[in-house]
Amino acid sequence: MSHFIPHGFRFASVCSGIKHEAGRADLALIVSDVPATAAGVYTKNLVCAAPVTFDRERTPGRGFRAVVVNSGNANACTGKRGMEDAVAMARFAACAIGAADDAALVMSTGVIGHFLPMDKIEAGIYAAAQILASDEEALTNAAKGIMTTDTRHKLFSKSVTLDDGREVRIVGMAKGAGMIAPNMATFLGVVATDAVLEPEEAQSLLRTIADKTFNCITVEGHTSTNDTLILLANGAAGGASAASNPDFCAALESVCEDLARSIPEDGEGASHLVTIRVLGLKEESHARTIAKLIAESPLVKCAFAGNDPNWGRIVSAAGYSGVEFDVSKVSLRVNQFLLFQNGAPVDFDPETVAKSMRENKEIDVELRFGEGTASARFWTCDLTKEYVSINADYHT
Amino acid sequence: MSHFIPHGFRFASVCSGIKHEAGRADLALIVSDVPATAAGVYTKNLVCAAPVTFDRERTPGRGFRAVVVNSGNANACTGKRGMEDAVAMARFAACAIGAADDAALVMSTGVIGHFLPMDKIEAGIYAAAQILASDEEALTNAAKGIMTTDTRHKLFSKSVTLDDGREVRIVGMAKGAGMIAPNMATFLGVVATDAVLEPEEAQSLLRTIADKTFNCITVEGHTSTNDTLILLANGAAGGASAASNPDFCAALESVCEDLARSIPEDGEGASHLVTIRVLGLKEESHARTIAKLIAESPLVKCAFAGNDPNWGRIVSAAGYSGVEFDVSKVSLRVNQFLLFQNGAPVDFDPETVAKSMRENKEIDVELRFGEGTASARFWTCDLTKEYVSINADYHT
Repeated sequence: MSHFIPHGFRFASVCSGIKHEAGRADLALIVSDVPATAAGVYTKNLVCAAPVTFDRERTPGRGFRAVVVNSGNANACTGKRGMEDAVAMARFAACAIGAADDAALVMSTGVIGHFLPMDKIEAGIYAAAQILASDEEALTNAAKGIMTTDTRHKLFSKSVTLDDGREVRIVGMAKGAGMIAPNMATFLGVVATDAVLEPEEAQSLLRTIADKTFNCITVEGHTSTNDTLILLANGAAGGASAASNPDFCAALESVCEDLARSIPEDGEGASHLVTIRVLGLKEESHARTIAKLIAESPLVKCAFAGNDPNWGRIVSAAGYSGVEFDVSKVSLRVNQFLLFQNGAPVDFDPETVAKSMRENKEIDVELRFGEGTASARFWTCDLTKEYVSINADYHT
Repeated sequence: MSHFIPHGFRFASVCSGIKHEAGRADLALIVSDVPATAAGVYTKNLVCAAPVTFDRERTPGRGFRAVVVNSGNANACTGKRGMEDAVAMARFAACAIGAADDAALVMSTGVIGHFLPMDKIEAGIYAAAQILASDEEALTNAAKGIMTTDTRHKLFSKSVTLDDGREVRIVGMAKGAGMIAPNMATFLGVVATDAVLEPEEAQSLLRTIADKTFNCITVEGHTSTNDTLILLANGAAGGASAASNPDFCAALESVCEDLARSIPEDGEGASHLVTIRVLGLKEESHARTIAKLIAESPLVKCAFAGNDPNWGRIVSAAGYSGVEFDVSKVSLRVNQFLLFQNGAPVDFDPETVAKSMRENKEIDVELRFGEGTASARFWTCDLTKEYVSINADYHT
């Protein structure tokens, strides 16, 4: 599959030796040839990694030329030295491409509590800078270089024609599949576009879209110390700001939604991608609370793993959300099959529904209330024995 | 092991045929020979079963002679007919022991969304009433009759001598091991004492103790539709009210704590009972929030299953609790071994700590903050492949 690569961006990754497995890329560079606007959305974990603190202080802003990402070591819980290392890593990246010292942002993912091997990081950055390219292969290599327990790289792109006839391109890459051995992992995402965006516009747009996409996914509900999403807009397509163009905003959201869904789809041990749609509440926050609780219930997720249309676990999860509702107005559909209505289960054939679940990688859950018009959508994966193996047996 | 059986109580259970497995007791009667005070604490799930609604309306109160419990069918999501069945079930129990119509409370646990087989319930109640006894065997049989996926019955008792020299006895039984196939299960508990307690005293005492015991346990954080805890105090020991006697209150709490711990200890698929102690917060609610989040984190629970002293998962779970704290004042101990201090991991030998976890059924986690003096304690179990099997593969 070929992607729409925004103008003025180049990509590279190398095996710098941070990861123990020989031949696995662990350092990626995303470079803009001209200064770009950057916006960021970060983990809300109070225990956050040095790169998160570093980027958060600098975005939104303009004049950025690079994002440097390493996998295999999260540079988290590393104190003062961890922050010095993040600063140095950003400076190496900026210097390696001939930009100003403060022109790079930085991301790290992998084990926590260990210092970065700065000699390998420095050598890796300079090596990556030598092979930067704007082709499909370089883009794919960069997406692979940020992976940890992911079983596949995650890359999506869109092209939009604006009102003035200009083409604008958006490409996004992400990693994340759960929190990983031996300590934890993370969600990381970089979205690059050649559209023109001012820093505050980019920040506002990214925040709104993240709340509908990346903030609606869960593998097991454990917020990492390193979660980071960066948007780079270098304006190479020219023209006016695209921030208020509905086609551009829709395309940006679409790329983010595709990336977001790909995380639980590739969730550790997952056999199903599950969409939880909650409708008919008084307020969106109520719908989100219920959707998130269902998406994170180990019992619901085990039922999905067993292809069981277990209406009781889903309805009872809504019941302990703290949201007030009239049970007699609740209905539940799984893969379009009506299972529950008017406060009681309906007469359905469990085997027919189970077959539909078993035969589809995706499961659709629609829980409808009679309280109002607000809705929310979450994506999650099922909870399998393989998930437990990955997260319990990693030392053996 | 022989128990302290309070005076004036008799017990029985029978196989009434509600459960499909032949020979498994599924109906228990706990009877007081004299009218007793009753107090209750119930599920906070908005979707709650008919017996919960029935008992909640009647407690606290006096004049109760019996609690009738069936396992195998939860009488939940059964609408108007479910409530009629709960009323009838209580009346059968009262009639069977020659008490007033409104002298019985009722509990159900098992599958949800199915009507109770009232003919079997009625016959079972009358059969149980014929074999009521106040000995160890009858008590144990009653505790077995309320089990669902529990691998063992749960019974604890205490004897206390009050200031006036009178002996007061307390015995408690409980069931619960997770939410079970094909829909869900529940925590149920009955505590009987021959102490004198007024209804409001009993209610206040039970609420306070439940908040420190039964409300501090979690298997997977899914609140059932049927959770019920009933305290019966029949005053057969005579004397004044025991409500303000510290020895009695401590003994009642001790029985409740033993019962509470026995639930995650027998958690579905569990190989460890884990105590999470959180200390040094400004407010108790902060400590509870953090303790509960750690106790329910699938990643933390998988690490326990793998006997891994994974400080990162524990500390980062505290970090996303929403509670403000200074990471540099946090320290973490697992089985007394110091793993984390001053915001960073310390130099410890993972194999020594792992060995201690592997060789002990119980794991102790102490997470200490530097914010204040409030603390909380939760009990949980680990998350194993067997848990997923029990909750995913129950149809195969």
